[in-house]
Amino acid sequence: MSDTPSSPDVSNLTIAVLGGTGPQGRGLARRFAAAGLDVVLGSRDASRASAAAAALASVGRVRGASNADAAAAGDIVLVVVPWDGHAQLLESLRGELAGKVVVDCVNPLGFDKQGAYALAVEEGSATQQAAAILPDSRVVGAFHNVSAVLLEDPAVERVDTDVLVLGDDREATDLVQALADVVPGMRGLYGGRLRNAHQVEAFTANLISVNRRYKAHAGVRVTDV
Amino acid sequence: MSDTPSSPDVSNLTIAVLGGTGPQGRGLARRFAAAGLDVVLGSRDASRASAAAAALASVGRVRGASNADAAAAGDIVLVVVPWDGHAQLLESLRGELAGKVVVDCVNPLGFDKQGAYALAVEEGSATQQAAAILPDSRVVGAFHNVSAVLLEDPAVERVDTDVLVLGDDREATDLVQALADVVPGMRGLYGGRLRNAHQVEAFTANLISVNRRYKAHAGVRVTDV
Repeated sequence: MSDTPSSPDVSNLTIAVLGGTGPQGRGLARRFAAAGLDVVLGSRDASRASAAAAALASVGRVRGASNADAAAAGDIVLVVVPWDGHAQLLESLRGELAGKVVVDCVNPLGFDKQGAYALAVEEGSATQQAAAILPDSRVVGAFHNVSAVLLEDPAVERVDTDVLVLGDDREATDLVQALADVVPGMRGLYGGRLRNAHQVEAFTANLISVNRRYKAHAGVRVTDV
Repeated sequence: MSDTPSSPDVSNLTIAVLGGTGPQGRGLARRFAAAGLDVVLGSRDASRASAAAAALASVGRVRGASNADAAAAGDIVLVVVPWDGHAQLLESLRGELAGKVVVDCVNPLGFDKQGAYALAVEEGSATQQAAAILPDSRVVGAFHNVSAVLLEDPAVERVDTDVLVLGDDREATDLVQALADVVPGMRGLYGGRLRNAHQVEAFTANLISVNRRYKAHAGVRVTDV
């Protein structure tokens, strides 16, 4: 859907990935770089980010930076950090993230012997927490249910999954849908307002259950759209 | 998947649908009856249930009854009542439902001008509330995300969607997966434990958002399974 006339053009945008040295961040960076976008991987430790970026040099234009520098450089900033440090990181980057489209990809999950489960979040969801911390940013939720294993696997040419994009700012959600659309197989779909982000984040726990039962790397497709 | 050797045989079971006179209940009843199962529609008002059953007479074996009589008659009992009366109904049917597989299909949702949203449930989810009220039943959650419009439409031959089946009792979830599998196009998938039911129920709010945006009758497919 990225080349339909009504879809925003993301080809000249720089995509920052905060927490870009984890599997999900690296995997998303790989896919956006492969699609020809400029990617800046952010990490608390800029040298770790540079090392992770170097490992993707053959894929496309990826560089490493501190989270703050990555946030400053990105036109769209993805937040792919562990839930544990989510609030603190965003509080520290309020200035850099002001005015930008910030895409929260974080799933607040707990794990025990019976698998994964959703954690309660005071603000309702990680995405709503981000929106509360960043009133001057355009916060969207997306990329919650995409398998990091598939994203990171160079042998996987198409990531056949829908990306539910959540937000109250239509221009911002349209932009993030277009970003998802650059990845072969991936489709960005509007999935509801911020207040309905929790269940999309939490649904990752169900996909983990599916993966265990069926030995799969499960994703989601929405039918009839 | 209904005819794989490992799948339980549901062909001789009676399926009760409590709250069977609403669109979702009527739609599920239609599909199970069309697949050759015996269906008992339950309602607070047995005569309303009988009228709804009579409207499905050409489809298969469907009869109407009070909710209590339907619960007593069913081998598998689906709960498809409005969230408002959910707890009270189940409390009133503890005896009838003891020892049975009870399938909670209820989505606790609120609606306002901006659409649907998930309601907070003290027990975590409608399914967990049912499990708390019915300690002597085998409570499973399923059929949350299936479009009533498609289920009810006689022109729709296949309901192409996955049904996520949630529960802690493997034999019961296997049975309900097999029940989903009798409907052409439908596939029952294990979707996690009871504690992960909330987000599947709440996800219906997202599908309602999708339906509004894309003029669709959205459903869910899990990929890579």
